[in-house]
Amino acid sequence: MRKSLGVKPYVFPMPVLMIATYGEDGVVDVMNMAWGGICDTDKIALNITESHKTAANIKAHNAFTISVTDRAHMAEADFFGIASGNRMADKFERTGLTATRSELVDAPIIEEFPLTLECEVVQMARCEWGFRVVGQIKNVTAHEEVLDAEGNVDVAKLDPLMFDQFQNNYWAVGELAGKAWSAGTGLMGK
Amino acid sequence: MRKSLGVKPYVFPMPVLMIATYGEDGVVDVMNMAWGGICDTDKIALNITESHKTAANIKAHNAFTISVTDRAHMAEADFFGIASGNRMADKFERTGLTATRSELVDAPIIEEFPLTLECEVVQMARCEWGFRVVGQIKNVTAHEEVLDAEGNVDVAKLDPLMFDQFQNNYWAVGELAGKAWSAGTGLMGK
Repeated sequence: MRKSLGVKPYVFPMPVLMIATYGEDGVVDVMNMAWGGICDTDKIALNITESHKTAANIKAHNAFTISVTDRAHMAEADFFGIASGNRMADKFERTGLTATRSELVDAPIIEEFPLTLECEVVQMARCEWGFRVVGQIKNVTAHEEVLDAEGNVDVAKLDPLMFDQFQNNYWAVGELAGKAWSAGTGLMGK
Repeated sequence: MRKSLGVKPYVFPMPVLMIATYGEDGVVDVMNMAWGGICDTDKIALNITESHKTAANIKAHNAFTISVTDRAHMAEADFFGIASGNRMADKFERTGLTATRSELVDAPIIEEFPLTLECEVVQMARCEWGFRVVGQIKNVTAHEEVLDAEGNVDVAKLDPLMFDQFQNNYWAVGELAGKAWSAGTGLMGK
């Protein structure tokens, strides 16, 4: 039996992505975004509100980094989603996190986040339902501790957060469920 | 120490979303998509390849449904990502799943998937890196079994899959990690 829930932005999982930018004054800002993700093999799309500090910063520097946060930094990640860079001048500073300038794009890398994409902006589009930014991924870096013996990211070591828009919760990852492009091959030869 | 991984489409989590459409001939097609998600309080964006059957179907009917799959339907979900609706006439039929016509949009609801958004297309955009479709969410329905006592979706009951583009795996959800818009409030008053 299906129950109707009305018009809601309901999918799962949603990511907990940290967009890091420089202001015109060089001050680091970070915001927490769930409405965005990969849109091509080398691009990522952000759907944000144009009044956010991040939108002004992206216009000024044409670049951002975007990081996956882990469970160990849930408080900082959540704070980046609550506080406004427009109204709190020391927003980044008060977290005690460390920013390093990217060598590839004009944006900061937040060292404590385990996985970071360095992105150059290739499209900005204002539409009736928001401000969309597409970034070209110039490089990905990860903490050595989240890689397996072959140098690939291991999700269990990454320990990423997922956002639940149904009940405003963060979840951790659980068991390995199966292999993609393999779990369904039994139906191919039917 | 950060290690460089090169230019990769690496974020986590990525969703395992099932896009269901009708062909011009009324045949049901379903595809598995990771590159898309919520882009407004009542909209969802799909980034797909225009040569897919799904793109032709969306152009013909201006509608789709999109569902979250659970662990119980991993084989079918994975198969929908491997098989091509252009080359396999009985793609949907051979899964044995059940399609019912949506009362709100010109697209099928796959009954076995626990959470489904019924969407009307409000934007189609061809760009150099793909075909983007924005759907307006007209309603969300969920199996009663995935709701809590208050009628809200319970992620633990939903048992959704997540896609891992690092190693092509599907993961299940784990522990509740914390409360959004609350875990970081300690930094607000600093």
